[in-house]
Amino acid sequence: MIDINKEIESLNWQKEPRGLYEPIEYALASGGKRVRPTLALIAAEAIVNGGLINGDAIEQTVPAALALEVFHNFTLLHDDLMDHAEVRRGRPTVHVNWNANTAILSGDQMLIEAYKLLAGVPADKLPQVLKWFNEMATGICEGQQYDVDFEHMSQISINDYMKMIELKTSVLLANAMRIGGYIAGATHVQLEALYQYGLHLGLAFQIQDDILDVYGDPATFGKTIGGDICANKKTALLLTAMENADAESKAELLQWIMATDRNEEKVAAVTAIYDRLGVRQTCEAIMEDHTAQALAQLDKLPQNSATERLRVMAEQLAMRKS
Amino acid sequence: MIDINKEIESLNWQKEPRGLYEPIEYALASGGKRVRPTLALIAAEAIVNGGLINGDAIEQTVPAALALEVFHNFTLLHDDLMDHAEVRRGRPTVHVNWNANTAILSGDQMLIEAYKLLAGVPADKLPQVLKWFNEMATGICEGQQYDVDFEHMSQISINDYMKMIELKTSVLLANAMRIGGYIAGATHVQLEALYQYGLHLGLAFQIQDDILDVYGDPATFGKTIGGDICANKKTALLLTAMENADAESKAELLQWIMATDRNEEKVAAVTAIYDRLGVRQTCEAIMEDHTAQALAQLDKLPQNSATERLRVMAEQLAMRKS
Repeated sequence: MIDINKEIESLNWQKEPRGLYEPIEYALASGGKRVRPTLALIAAEAIVNGGLINGDAIEQTVPAALALEVFHNFTLLHDDLMDHAEVRRGRPTVHVNWNANTAILSGDQMLIEAYKLLAGVPADKLPQVLKWFNEMATGICEGQQYDVDFEHMSQISINDYMKMIELKTSVLLANAMRIGGYIAGATHVQLEALYQYGLHLGLAFQIQDDILDVYGDPATFGKTIGGDICANKKTALLLTAMENADAESKAELLQWIMATDRNEEKVAAVTAIYDRLGVRQTCEAIMEDHTAQALAQLDKLPQNSATERLRVMAEQLAMRKS
Repeated sequence: MIDINKEIESLNWQKEPRGLYEPIEYALASGGKRVRPTLALIAAEAIVNGGLINGDAIEQTVPAALALEVFHNFTLLHDDLMDHAEVRRGRPTVHVNWNANTAILSGDQMLIEAYKLLAGVPADKLPQVLKWFNEMATGICEGQQYDVDFEHMSQISINDYMKMIELKTSVLLANAMRIGGYIAGATHVQLEALYQYGLHLGLAFQIQDDILDVYGDPATFGKTIGGDICANKKTALLLTAMENADAESKAELLQWIMATDRNEEKVAAVTAIYDRLGVRQTCEAIMEDHTAQALAQLDKLPQNSATERLRVMAEQLAMRKS
């Protein structure tokens, strides 16, 4: 069994110049759930345990799994800089702890480090893995740009939003699954199933995130309830409400969006509009649909302890409270 | 004969979201000498014309050559942001024409685009080329960090400086040569010769740049003479002066470094100190030594029109006035 946290800790950042590598070490040491490398490893296990290839394939997945985690943390580092976010996982962000230029340059090096790890993929698998990795990285930058664009646009449909979160979140999970499976020797059908599982899991996760922001239990939800409402974030809930609202409800919503003070009142009022429009039910149905689509993929994979873990992950996701 | 400018123009940036790709197109359209892809192609020609392999190898070098150029322009984009530079090749820089976040995100995507181009390297050559490309990219980030560090350090030796410019400038030229030659089927000895040629060419170029800033002909030199002196830039000339100066000259130099007004007087005074210490001759000797070392490498390569071009490039470099 591979311990992904140990693998991440064993990466060597004790290199010169310190000003370049120390922020990378700092960013990677901040923890997180390591979802992406874990998915890559489980995908490999699902295929290997299916009896298609020997166990070395899981070891061979480690460099790509690490590349995915380093890449993910690179995107957080640059995103935090662009968003002027001051805290990440309870610690000051890199641009706060150092400065903006450090965040830019060490971030760039982190992206390069991801590709250095990727170079550890077996040579015969490297061309395909590099292509998927590039496709995934491109998707995330495109998704980030759409996210920025959407902030300034008044007419965003729920479909636009789904496309954006697919790029920004899901393609990384989908490619983590596909890359892990590919290195372990998955068939075309299995690869597509792994990819679709990751894609739908990511979409379900993001929508559940939007729902919890409004309907989560304050006792278990990590953030303040209604944070997205106060920030006028274009979430699945707000966009669903805008699409389903009659003229009167729409006007009421827009009026609250204009209000930047009276936050407590705003959260209560917007939540009441959501309730009236059945937004929660609509979004939960979308979320459950994606969870079901993720689960349906598992039928196309070998049935073993790894696919069982994937099943539990998807099921727990739909029921999570935080 | 490959026309590298045409190849660069044929890259397709007409993609959505425009906010991501337009700045990339803008950055790449600004011209420049295309030194790095040209070196990669000449290196391939030198090997192919040597009769070792067929002419397709030059075509096969194009994706890597383009990757090197896109990568180089990515470094300029992020460097300009970090340096707050407002103009690049006569046009506003990306962060001025758009904003800082655009420069960060489109720059990131440019780095990814370089790797996308690199994925076009023949599969059997890809693992090694990816490794060298990563090594090169790492060198440039490390060199950039040393450059930043040196600004705040009082004790920089000429050796520290050479190490910094080797990372910041030379490893890109050296790897352009090596990658081009490798794809064309060069032997180990030839690869090492190509690499060393690029390395020494880069060092000679950078030192000549430092010399021209002080001793260039104002009529042909593109920038203001003495710009480095006014900015207290730690160039090969200043560091050589500091190493060779007696206590009196050192004190005089340091006094001028403190002076931030009276620029014209400062340039004249510092130049006079350089003259007295023979700094120009010392630096020209270092530059000529690197030029000679670059030229010596060519003896280890097939003798043909491509190696002749490499000879002329190195010789002209030593005599350039701008």
